[in-house]
Amino acid sequence: MEFRSKAYLSLLNPFELFRSKQVLHQNPTIEAPRTEPNEIKIFVFDFSKDTFYQRELHSIPDSFGFLNSQSVSWINVDGLRKDDVNAIGTHYGIHPLIIEDILSIGQRPKMDDINDLLFCVLNMLFISKRDNTIESEQISLVLGKNFVISFQEDNTRDVFDPLREKLKANNSKLRQSSADFLFYSLIDMIVDNYFLVMEKLGERIEILEDEIIRRATTRSLAKINLMRKEMIVLKRTISPVREMVYGILKSESDLIEEKTLKYFKDVYDHINQANDMVENYRDLMMNLQDLYVSNVNLKMNEVMKVMAIVTCLLAPPTVIGGIFGMNFEIIPIAHLKAGFYLTVFVMLLIPVIMIFIFKRRGWF
Amino acid sequence: MEFRSKAYLSLLNPFELFRSKQVLHQNPTIEAPRTEPNEIKIFVFDFSKDTFYQRELHSIPDSFGFLNSQSVSWINVDGLRKDDVNAIGTHYGIHPLIIEDILSIGQRPKMDDINDLLFCVLNMLFISKRDNTIESEQISLVLGKNFVISFQEDNTRDVFDPLREKLKANNSKLRQSSADFLFYSLIDMIVDNYFLVMEKLGERIEILEDEIIRRATTRSLAKINLMRKEMIVLKRTISPVREMVYGILKSESDLIEEKTLKYFKDVYDHINQANDMVENYRDLMMNLQDLYVSNVNLKMNEVMKVMAIVTCLLAPPTVIGGIFGMNFEIIPIAHLKAGFYLTVFVMLLIPVIMIFIFKRRGWF
Amino acid sequence: MEFRSKAYLSLLNPFELFRSKQVLHQNPTIEAPRTEPNEIKIFVFDFSKDTFYQRELHSIPDSFGFLNSQSVSWINVDGLRKDDVNAIGTHYGIHPLIIEDILSIGQRPKMDDINDLLFCVLNMLFISKRDNTIESEQISLVLGKNFVISFQEDNTRDVFDPLREKLKANNSKLRQSSADFLFYSLIDMIVDNYFLVMEKLGERIEILEDEIIRRATTRSLAKINLMRKEMIVLKRTISPVREMVYGILKSESDLIEEKTLKYFKDVYDHINQANDMVENYRDLMMNLQDLYVSNVNLKMNEVMKVMAIVTCLLAPPTVIGGIFGMNFEIIPIAHLKAGFYLTVFVMLLIPVIMIFIFKRRGWF
Amino acid sequence: MEFRSKAYLSLLNPFELFRSKQVLHQNPTIEAPRTEPNEIKIFVFDFSKDTFYQRELHSIPDSFGFLNSQSVSWINVDGLRKDDVNAIGTHYGIHPLIIEDILSIGQRPKMDDINDLLFCVLNMLFISKRDNTIESEQISLVLGKNFVISFQEDNTRDVFDPLREKLKANNSKLRQSSADFLFYSLIDMIVDNYFLVMEKLGERIEILEDEIIRRATTRSLAKINLMRKEMIVLKRTISPVREMVYGILKSESDLIEEKTLKYFKDVYDHINQANDMVENYRDLMMNLQDLYVSNVNLKMNEVMKVMAIVTCLLAPPTVIGGIFGMNFEIIPIAHLKAGFYLTVFVMLLIPVIMIFIFKRRGWF
Amino acid sequence: MEFRSKAYLSLLNPFELFRSKQVLHQNPTIEAPRTEPNEIKIFVFDFSKDTFYQRELHSIPDSFGFLNSQSVSWINVDGLRKDDVNAIGTHYGIHPLIIEDILSIGQRPKMDDINDLLFCVLNMLFISKRDNTIESEQISLVLGKNFVISFQEDNTRDVFDPLREKLKANNSKLRQSSADFLFYSLIDMIVDNYFLVMEKLGERIEILEDEIIRRATTRSLAKINLMRKEMIVLKRTISPVREMVYGILKSESDLIEEKTLKYFKDVYDHINQANDMVENYRDLMMNLQDLYVSNVNLKMNEVMKVMAIVTCLLAPPTVIGGIFGMNFEIIPIAHLKAGFYLTVFVMLLIPVIMIFIFKRRGWF
Repeated sequence: MEFRSKAYLSLLNPFELFRSKQVLHQNPTIEAPRTEPNEIKIFVFDFSKDTFYQRELHSIPDSFGFLNSQSVSWINVDGLRKDDVNAIGTHYGIHPLIIEDILSIGQRPKMDDINDLLFCVLNMLFISKRDNTIESEQISLVLGKNFVISFQEDNTRDVFDPLREKLKANNSKLRQSSADFLFYSLIDMIVDNYFLVMEKLGERIEILEDEIIRRATTRSLAKINLMRKEMIVLKRTISPVREMVYGILKSESDLIEEKTLKYFKDVYDHINQANDMVENYRDLMMNLQDLYVSNVNLKMNEVMKVMAIVTCLLAPPTVIGGIFGMNFEIIPIAHLKAGFYLTVFVMLLIPVIMIFIFKRRGWF
Repeated sequence: MEFRSKAYLSLLNPFELFRSKQVLHQNPTIEAPRTEPNEIKIFVFDFSKDTFYQRELHSIPDSFGFLNSQSVSWINVDGLRKDDVNAIGTHYGIHPLIIEDILSIGQRPKMDDINDLLFCVLNMLFISKRDNTIESEQISLVLGKNFVISFQEDNTRDVFDPLREKLKANNSKLRQSSADFLFYSLIDMIVDNYFLVMEKLGERIEILEDEIIRRATTRSLAKINLMRKEMIVLKRTISPVREMVYGILKSESDLIEEKTLKYFKDVYDHINQANDMVENYRDLMMNLQDLYVSNVNLKMNEVMKVMAIVTCLLAPPTVIGGIFGMNFEIIPIAHLKAGFYLTVFVMLLIPVIMIFIFKRRGWF
Repeated sequence: MEFRSKAYLSLLNPFELFRSKQVLHQNPTIEAPRTEPNEIKIFVFDFSKDTFYQRELHSIPDSFGFLNSQSVSWINVDGLRKDDVNAIGTHYGIHPLIIEDILSIGQRPKMDDINDLLFCVLNMLFISKRDNTIESEQISLVLGKNFVISFQEDNTRDVFDPLREKLKANNSKLRQSSADFLFYSLIDMIVDNYFLVMEKLGERIEILEDEIIRRATTRSLAKINLMRKEMIVLKRTISPVREMVYGILKSESDLIEEKTLKYFKDVYDHINQANDMVENYRDLMMNLQDLYVSNVNLKMNEVMKVMAIVTCLLAPPTVIGGIFGMNFEIIPIAHLKAGFYLTVFVMLLIPVIMIFIFKRRGWF
Repeated sequence: MEFRSKAYLSLLNPFELFRSKQVLHQNPTIEAPRTEPNEIKIFVFDFSKDTFYQRELHSIPDSFGFLNSQSVSWINVDGLRKDDVNAIGTHYGIHPLIIEDILSIGQRPKMDDINDLLFCVLNMLFISKRDNTIESEQISLVLGKNFVISFQEDNTRDVFDPLREKLKANNSKLRQSSADFLFYSLIDMIVDNYFLVMEKLGERIEILEDEIIRRATTRSLAKINLMRKEMIVLKRTISPVREMVYGILKSESDLIEEKTLKYFKDVYDHINQANDMVENYRDLMMNLQDLYVSNVNLKMNEVMKVMAIVTCLLAPPTVIGGIFGMNFEIIPIAHLKAGFYLTVFVMLLIPVIMIFIFKRRGWF
Repeated sequence: MEFRSKAYLSLLNPFELFRSKQVLHQNPTIEAPRTEPNEIKIFVFDFSKDTFYQRELHSIPDSFGFLNSQSVSWINVDGLRKDDVNAIGTHYGIHPLIIEDILSIGQRPKMDDINDLLFCVLNMLFISKRDNTIESEQISLVLGKNFVISFQEDNTRDVFDPLREKLKANNSKLRQSSADFLFYSLIDMIVDNYFLVMEKLGERIEILEDEIIRRATTRSLAKINLMRKEMIVLKRTISPVREMVYGILKSESDLIEEKTLKYFKDVYDHINQANDMVENYRDLMMNLQDLYVSNVNLKMNEVMKVMAIVTCLLAPPTVIGGIFGMNFEIIPIAHLKAGFYLTVFVMLLIPVIMIFIFKRRGWF
């Protein structure tokens, strides 16, 4: 039991080590306390049908010139330093409540339409390369007359690289359109990324299912538990985006042109599908949980059968051995030459007959 | 245990082999990556009350002539080759977003009404002949003024053969009606096919239920798990079709005549019924899961009883054997002639009495 | 184990024999293939405040005369022979889609209001006298200006006998009213019958509960499973009738007089109550399932305790017996006269003390 | 096992005796057949701001005078004798369908507004003093211009005594107001009583929880099952009252004055809260069920551990005893003086060492 | 078993001691009977843009002067003494039904808009410092033209200290705004506090999860049960606040200015998020329950394996020992010198071989 016990712990330990660091951060309800970042990075794309210009800005006031420019500008802000975000927000006329939402992480996805600006906040999902778990990062988007401002926490990654490529191409639809199409493209990119993340998750479910059917251990149990928590994160992230996109569709904001609405309707279809898939994943995980429990029961059942069989097989020889082991003066056949062999033969014959009978009854 | 273990694996293996190939494809959330087909097949039915004409087309431009023809045309495209679908779509005025939907498989069933065209995408279901599992294939339908275009992935099968027969009959309602009735007939055929698929599934549930009541093994467990996944596929396929048909009913499109609406209402009733049935199947599968768990528990209970009985029966003879096996110099009745027989008689009598008592108590 | 195993099968067998015949028919999703009946029976009640006339018709055309009669006619058609139903339907102006619904069994309850006719289809429920299970039979009702036509599959039974009695009474409200009140009375009778069926079902649940508390066997498990399937049938039958009656209430059809609406509202209240009761029954069945599982677990627990106790009691005598059974030349007290008796006394005393301790600890 | 088995039955029996009498009556779906009462009791309170008059009436026609009286009358009818209720109903202009509802017990709570009368039917709940279970009694209330008629089944109890006290007080709001406030007060009293009943139920849940944590027996299981059935009764009784009160709020009946509506809104808030509480109770009962199952499992787990430990401890002495019990002519140390003592010492030492190791591993 | 049993109780006892005192108070459905407080404490903040004044009042009439003052007043009443609350309520024109709501604890959160006053009642949540459980306290808020009155039960704690600080700051938005912004700030503070409480709860869930994975005992079971009850409290507290805030948003009361609505919309977003989080917590607790059950099963499984292995290993030596312990006159190899050693070697060899085989089969 000792070795087993150690093996058990060694199986569990990596999981627990992993838990105490990452899962807490993933706990759907506790947000890690936000730490003020040291630096803020601002990158601007300014384009029209014919012109294209991209630059990293090095001071906040540099970002102020795009408010009334004719060309479309995408101002991407990485790092949520309070004073800087405040300065930008004030310049571009963003309502103080919205600035507060941008600065506090752990927001529920939502949209708002204040002061001729369309604001929405949602989360990007990533698959962590280190441990394959889901990670999320909040992103806020502000659509103005000729600009889109995006605020991200982390400057090392986002999901917009393919979009940046398209911006460089003169003939891309993005370059031909106004700011609302850029706004749509950013949201579309985030939503499309949900599917990639879910696909990876689906693969992990497949692998876990394999593992559970083959060998159900405490480790699989911990994995199921972890994945059910990830499902909660997934649902929390994706489900309110549906309302958000619906809100944009119904906002009747002047900022969104009639022809772009069709594209938002497309995003709406996709987010509906993503929602369905989240439900399906939850069903799959419930199946896995049931499969796990049933499998454990079945294996216990088999162990019980082995015990029952051995107990039964052991019974007759034990009794016979006990009978002829008694110290009576007169024991029948004790004096016979073949007595011993005969008895041993019977002692071994009975279990063999029992095995034969059990097999025919389908016990094995 | 060895043989058992092997038997266990041999039971499981066919399932697992089957799993790694088919189930992945069936996993409700991971779509197999679409591979560009080598060829595209176009087959046209062009008919009016009096004329009928059917032909396989060998070039894309051949399919362009039906846009403004007076007769009703059904252009069936098998194989979703990107360039060809684009060419057809552009010619018939299909919106780029719709063309994208047609080309990407794994779409959620939906309808759309853009540019005087009615578009809907849904899935046909088939029972795989090889392994009796459910397979699905996406189909897109576009209804125009005098034509219906259908896009399918796979050219080896669809559910429209009875409809093709009807088209050949001069006096069929299909021939007497305009394109919207053809559009209805295609959707109706697909929905009716859902019932056939569910019937087959119902038979498999019946068989599985029989199996579980008779003998609950890991194999049954795997089958339950597989079928619960199929239920997810079924629900994912059928449930949004309800919204889709409702959308058509409420679209107020000029393409659908008043008198055809009654028929769409009929399809709507059927899809509602299909939805109910999916719910019923899910309930049945939950019952099966519960039945399985209870059955395994009950069988374990029985094994436990056998062990308890054998343990109890074994106790008295073992103790008596131990008593008279002790090496005391003076053992009562040890010197009696009948001592041995008497003791053995008692050793065997006690279990017999116990069996008798247990039987009366209803332990057996 | 042999006898047990046989007993087990003999318990199960009657159920399984019963299953393969009846349950398939009851499977909520697979409808038995409809067989064309050999004969059709038409029975007509024609009445007004003062006149009353009832007759069995022997040819289809005989039923044609009631279309424009001033008196109210109830034409009851037993047996759904395709050609005959078609003939009647065509004569009375029933839409082809409705005729199709009448002819195909397994319809979801619904109502329709086409061509100045009010149509509804629902199911009557019966308790099978043979095996106490629920059986259902589809009935279609068509309300016209002065007539009600009812189509039933089976001519051996329906739920309308009390209504026939009332029709014969001159002063019954039925005789004083127009066709819509007859239409109401038929639906009301069907809905009232649901309660009778549910009452019988409630009694069976009571009996099953008794059985499970007393003795939980595989047979009870099979019964639970069967009843949960019956619950599915019940829900499938009753639940959509609510929508149907609501549809009639909201139809604003000229065929239903203002004063009769109050009666339909009453049916609506009843069907709501029936729906609640179905939910309650489902809850009760879930309770039973939980009760069953808990009971099986508890009994296993008790068996485990017996084993644990016997194992513990057996331990000391076995060890003592083993000790004094060893073939050492010098064994203490072996030469004493009372040695044997002393040892046996200790061997028996220890279990007695243990039993005493266990009892005080509440193990028994 | 015998004594245990008897103890088991004696634990169960009182419950079962209790079940067959009371539970059937409580079965949420089967209503006990209504028996026509022998007598009907009518008690009238007639009051205005200044006058107050209370009397038991001894004939039905005596109750007819309050139809057009200026003062407010509360006519309380105990005992639903068909002819008498019919007579009163007809006199006060109650619609036949409503009279039918009053007479048939087991009605779903609902309100109706016919012929310038406001009718509602609901259930009072009581805690049976004998066995602490929930009992319910149907009450029908009819509000007319200047009167309220209440119909109860049972004349031995109701929940209106505090209200009767208030009626006697000249300065009570009840005396100052018109009939609609009396109508409100009656409903309010019934709804407030629900909370008292639920409080008692909450205490029983607390006690049951204690019992389950301390000692989970078949008796607790039966109690859980009984309480889950009571939850169904509770939900059935309370849940539709919400709709009923909402119906009164939205009825726009002239019978209810503007200023009284505020009070009905208050009842509506209370009934909402009662609904929430029913849901909470159901959750609590699910918790209890889970707690019970988990507790039984945990205890079994402990018994298993004891068995495993005893089996392990027994193993080495048994083998050693077996070794030195073999009848070989030459057995090592068999001739030593201390051989026996040494061997016995080892036989006892090994289990002691094992216990020590097990303890350190946390097995105990 | 004795020591274990004591250990078991000692583990359980602290929980039960704790239960009977605190949990009853927390039971979501039983409200502790309200006791009339001895004293009432009134504290007033009266402020405008430029003036600020705070004072504890020592008599009720002192609080009457703020009804028509131009500056904004916040009158905080601690302790719900009936007469005093009545006096204040009557002076400020609060409707008697509302005063009743203020005085009775255990109210469901709701808002009301009567007599030009906006009333709302909800609960503050606290984490009890003593035992880390959730405690709640009801608070009633009344918004008038220039005043807000808050009624609390307990004067030792509330969640408004940060707000009091802000009030002292001349330039705070609170000081610049009218009474509706104060009203908003109070509700906002309460809602924000829900998140703090939930965060603490999240930490406890984390710890409990750790405990369950490491060692699942009856104590963990009791903790799960306790936390599931806390979830019920949480849901009961938070869920209706959503409706309440929505009611304020839709009230169109003149008391709330257009520009403050935006802030209430923000609270609405937060309470939505809180609701989501409650759902997530419930899911997490269900996961924990499943994890617990699975873990207990898995551990039992392991114990069973140990027993099965020991039983199997014990079987061959027992049989061999029995064989050579039989008292036959002629026993083979009994007279050999090495006979004993050979047999013992075989007796020990067989288990070693079995262990080796079992290890290769993955039994260990």
